[in-house]
Amino acid sequence: MPTPSRDHNRLLPVDPGVQAIAHALYSSVAEAPIISPHGHVPAQWLHEDQSFTDPANLFITHDHYVTRLLHANGVPLEALGLGAQQADPREVWDTLAAHWHKFAGTASAYWISESLARVFGVEEELTPETAHSIYDTVAAALPTAALRPRALFENFRIEVLATTDDPLDALDAHSALASDASFAGRVIPTFRPDAYLDPEAQGFSERVEQLLATAGEGKATFRTYLDALRARRAYFIERGAVSADHGVYEPYTCELDAHTAEELFQGALAGNLDADSAREFRGHMLWQMAAMSVEDGLVMTIHPGVRRNHHTSTYETFGPDTGHDIPVRVEFTENLRPLLQSFGAAEGFHLVLFTIDESTYSRELAPLAGFYPSVFVGAPWWFIDAPDAMARFRSAVTESAGFYRTSGFIDDTRAYLSIPARHDVARRADAGYLGRLVAEGRVSIATAERIMTDTVDAIPREVFKL
Amino acid sequence: MPTPSRDHNRLLPVDPGVQAIAHALYSSVAEAPIISPHGHVPAQWLHEDQSFTDPANLFITHDHYVTRLLHANGVPLEALGLGAQQADPREVWDTLAAHWHKFAGTASAYWISESLARVFGVEEELTPETAHSIYDTVAAALPTAALRPRALFENFRIEVLATTDDPLDALDAHSALASDASFAGRVIPTFRPDAYLDPEAQGFSERVEQLLATAGEGKATFRTYLDALRARRAYFIERGAVSADHGVYEPYTCELDAHTAEELFQGALAGNLDADSAREFRGHMLWQMAAMSVEDGLVMTIHPGVRRNHHTSTYETFGPDTGHDIPVRVEFTENLRPLLQSFGAAEGFHLVLFTIDESTYSRELAPLAGFYPSVFVGAPWWFIDAPDAMARFRSAVTESAGFYRTSGFIDDTRAYLSIPARHDVARRADAGYLGRLVAEGRVSIATAERIMTDTVDAIPREVFKL
Amino acid sequence: MPTPSRDHNRLLPVDPGVQAIAHALYSSVAEAPIISPHGHVPAQWLHEDQSFTDPANLFITHDHYVTRLLHANGVPLEALGLGAQQADPREVWDTLAAHWHKFAGTASAYWISESLARVFGVEEELTPETAHSIYDTVAAALPTAALRPRALFENFRIEVLATTDDPLDALDAHSALASDASFAGRVIPTFRPDAYLDPEAQGFSERVEQLLATAGEGKATFRTYLDALRARRAYFIERGAVSADHGVYEPYTCELDAHTAEELFQGALAGNLDADSAREFRGHMLWQMAAMSVEDGLVMTIHPGVRRNHHTSTYETFGPDTGHDIPVRVEFTENLRPLLQSFGAAEGFHLVLFTIDESTYSRELAPLAGFYPSVFVGAPWWFIDAPDAMARFRSAVTESAGFYRTSGFIDDTRAYLSIPARHDVARRADAGYLGRLVAEGRVSIATAERIMTDTVDAIPREVFKL
Repeated sequence: MPTPSRDHNRLLPVDPGVQAIAHALYSSVAEAPIISPHGHVPAQWLHEDQSFTDPANLFITHDHYVTRLLHANGVPLEALGLGAQQADPREVWDTLAAHWHKFAGTASAYWISESLARVFGVEEELTPETAHSIYDTVAAALPTAALRPRALFENFRIEVLATTDDPLDALDAHSALASDASFAGRVIPTFRPDAYLDPEAQGFSERVEQLLATAGEGKATFRTYLDALRARRAYFIERGAVSADHGVYEPYTCELDAHTAEELFQGALAGNLDADSAREFRGHMLWQMAAMSVEDGLVMTIHPGVRRNHHTSTYETFGPDTGHDIPVRVEFTENLRPLLQSFGAAEGFHLVLFTIDESTYSRELAPLAGFYPSVFVGAPWWFIDAPDAMARFRSAVTESAGFYRTSGFIDDTRAYLSIPARHDVARRADAGYLGRLVAEGRVSIATAERIMTDTVDAIPREVFKL
Repeated sequence: MPTPSRDHNRLLPVDPGVQAIAHALYSSVAEAPIISPHGHVPAQWLHEDQSFTDPANLFITHDHYVTRLLHANGVPLEALGLGAQQADPREVWDTLAAHWHKFAGTASAYWISESLARVFGVEEELTPETAHSIYDTVAAALPTAALRPRALFENFRIEVLATTDDPLDALDAHSALASDASFAGRVIPTFRPDAYLDPEAQGFSERVEQLLATAGEGKATFRTYLDALRARRAYFIERGAVSADHGVYEPYTCELDAHTAEELFQGALAGNLDADSAREFRGHMLWQMAAMSVEDGLVMTIHPGVRRNHHTSTYETFGPDTGHDIPVRVEFTENLRPLLQSFGAAEGFHLVLFTIDESTYSRELAPLAGFYPSVFVGAPWWFIDAPDAMARFRSAVTESAGFYRTSGFIDDTRAYLSIPARHDVARRADAGYLGRLVAEGRVSIATAERIMTDTVDAIPREVFKL
Repeated sequence: MPTPSRDHNRLLPVDPGVQAIAHALYSSVAEAPIISPHGHVPAQWLHEDQSFTDPANLFITHDHYVTRLLHANGVPLEALGLGAQQADPREVWDTLAAHWHKFAGTASAYWISESLARVFGVEEELTPETAHSIYDTVAAALPTAALRPRALFENFRIEVLATTDDPLDALDAHSALASDASFAGRVIPTFRPDAYLDPEAQGFSERVEQLLATAGEGKATFRTYLDALRARRAYFIERGAVSADHGVYEPYTCELDAHTAEELFQGALAGNLDADSAREFRGHMLWQMAAMSVEDGLVMTIHPGVRRNHHTSTYETFGPDTGHDIPVRVEFTENLRPLLQSFGAAEGFHLVLFTIDESTYSRELAPLAGFYPSVFVGAPWWFIDAPDAMARFRSAVTESAGFYRTSGFIDDTRAYLSIPARHDVARRADAGYLGRLVAEGRVSIATAERIMTDTVDAIPREVFKL
């Protein structure tokens, strides 16, 4: 018997009147191809097309959404196979099962349940009692051809999948995939230059030296630095990139004269900028990235407002992306003003703003996207990529900016198997919100149908220039 | 066949049980007179009682809620008839029709649809196909007597309409209306002194000189400046004003000794205050305005937290109020403390606090209004003057401050035809919220009925001393 | 006939499908014992077991939730019996009745109605007409044995009741209760050292001298100060304390070297710290309190973000806790980082974070509690301890942190009679949220049943080490 999570009305509003409308809207896009313009699946997975090794590796060890909550509930990260130590996959799986009720209501629990059901036909709930049989089912399926990355790519109806890449990455896997006649999917790189723009990032000057070397530049001036960045963007664009992504603590931007920029750049290389000067440099580089996006057409996305590696000792033992990146307040209106003064109305410029600070949706982001032709409000991100948060997002943004100033859904994930579940959640959440607007006499059914389709198709295509 | 937007249960909760209660509550006030204690309709319109020229002018060109979203969606403001250039009204209308689905779910779309239905009997949805016939219907009706401002005033059941005026405005139109036996409506001015209180406002010293001249004052001292402001407030009060409105970046207030105030005032006139001193002066003038409100009884309203004219080049070409005023975070608790220390419990003082920063509702505004007899929480304003935001407002404020510490609805609009639709939205939203409280056993039906009536009648009358 | 507030589905979602599930979940815990790990009922009440004097004293005068809103609505605090003046209890009661509709929709109104119904059998609504008969009913019941504190303790099924106490309190009432064979309840103290940790608190140095004296310490050094605090904590632990509570303006923390700490401590005693140094001292003391909690096992709770005694003249006349403590924005991520760097993963350390700034729930608190094994998100507190706010809390926190990283309900009250009503609201709110998750196919009914039970039992027991 199917668990409630497989109810075909799952995640839709429970009121029968609204649900009927919402279900009809959802059904119209349920099987639409997936456009994934921002994520973290490695291109190598698709290039090499190897089977996934085991259920724990697939669902737990590399998913910091999952490991962090196990850690919070008392499980040491070592016990999950993070760091140097190996862990028995079945034991890791058992650990998840023992704690599974502590995930109830989280987006992660929903994605994993959905993935188990869709991909492995597992409909029963994960419990200590069912853990072994579910493990066995998954483990038995993994080596099959149908579970290899390329087969899943097709099965998931992924039309475009963007990866996230270091500016100096040669993008060999992307090139190989593009010239591989046996693979029809579109896998495109994304230019992510954070570590090359922040004087306070570890190894900044070495990295910039490598950047200049790759560009064949000997002399380290602000101009050669900009030129080298420009060249790498061009390299990415040749290999299919449509966007450049920026993860910053705050979206501070500023314009600087050439002399000041040069001075700060030299100080950054020498490692002797004070905190204020480092901030100015970062702020100016975000402005320069916008200038380059205006030139070369890469969509600019900004993911601000996260204190990375909050717990230093965990970072030192287990590295980054281990569950303790913690959001902070974000200010967009003043911080982005210099950038928007310069480029906000520039022809063809697209700037997608993501946030985990929900207070900015109605206060700053919707008003900005409601005026600047360049600005789009990004879909709820990371900790708020979940059904209730999506409903809050639509409610906060739509009343002043409508649907067409938002980005379309972004899965932002390395959890490859969860991609269809994640897009499905967004489609259901949007159908639910639209269904309510129709039921409340605020949008006609014909317009709602058009919006529903555009949300998974025309909007992401236009915003990300696909 | 009526479009869904004309469903008589529109905007009410969809649950049948709640809807029935909400509809009964709404019905009890649906036809109640409109009290509009804060808005931007020019008194001249009612004085001159001229027909509106054309549909584009009426619904689009002068409504920055509409032009901003068209601009965001790629339409240059010139093409809408802003700035020096003229635009063909039918083409402007067609532009709106082509983009109409991009307004779906916004408050503006709802207001326009409602206005078309109520005032022009247009029930069909605006689309490129229906654009011409709707345009023709509206254009044909505009010259008729029923569509002139005074006829609409009566038809809309407007009891009081407040305008917003420069302190040096002679208020001739108001005086003429008051002494015009053929017009029974009440049109009252509002004292809006921002430009006379902010040393960093363009033309501050010239404006203050004019102020002093009008008051017959030669010598520019802080005292004569205060006296002149006091005199203009008295002038407004004689002509019916009940409130003074203050639009500030932050609601910072401070008390200053006479010597410091004088020094800052002279510096402000000389144009040589630094940013910190200018802030002190503004903060002190907000405190002084409260002091005057305590003296003369004008209700003080504060609309803080907006970076005006965010995009300088648009401002330079098209002027202010062109869609790029962008909200910022607001802090009330500490900023208002000096003012409230002095006047928070003063007999008869009324201070209405508006915000676009929704995070302040439960955190600061409800607690302030839940203690200070002077403080009222303003209805959701501007970007959040919309059904979902109204529900969030009631939910955030009511649980600690109840209904009687809020201001009643404020339409804050220059879009004259939308006034009944805007008040109707608020009545429906409040009925929906109250209906839910009744259905959840939290308020008795008898009390809900009383609150519903008070919300559109006793409350705005008391808060605004009408 | 019962008023709507006694509907057995009150506060539950109104959709029939969700309501049925929610009601079943609620019913499973409706009669569960009350665990109250944080509150302000004086232990003396239970020790002395005296009858409450009169209805006004019981429901109004000492409940600043109630007096503040009467004050906001124009009733002077004197008229309610605050300060030096006496007030006739029946007149005070009549005043509440006259203003009762102004409390509609507030948590206070709900608690009072519930208390009147549960404890006194009063089902009719409080109005000027019913005021006298309700007063008489309550006044007649108060002297009866059933209405004495101990009888109510049993009747309310209170299993544990924590008080909040000054570190130098001898805790005599607690000791007496513990050794009183005729009283089976568990009443435990809570260590609340704020006034001993803040150099800017009135009487700081005198208080610290007393602290040192109690500990038998002559010499005032940072070390003897810490030792004295440690000794008082031990004293509390011996008498049953399980937690130490910290009310701070901001949750700023910092680690200091011994020399700096000593210097700041001496400056604090001498009363000559500037604002920045005082902040450093407070921040370091919060860090030290965490260090002590790691040592001695007291659960650390932090209630930050409130400007106490906002209106100085009311404070001077009527003292603290008179309704004008007003919340401010809170920042947790950066402020707590030093503390969490040191102790966030320490074995057995529990840190419960409360907030009135709802924007922190999804942005900071859920992510922190979703990684650090020590961190739990406190239930909605004070102004947001109410049904809608509880729904927002669950919605904001659960999707990333689940249910098991939250604290369980805390009534935080001195309003003894309202304790069952308050816990009942939380149980209903949680049942409603869980019911929706089940109806939306996001949580199985079996898991929801387990969570529902754990929320009122296993979770508070584990979080507060009971």
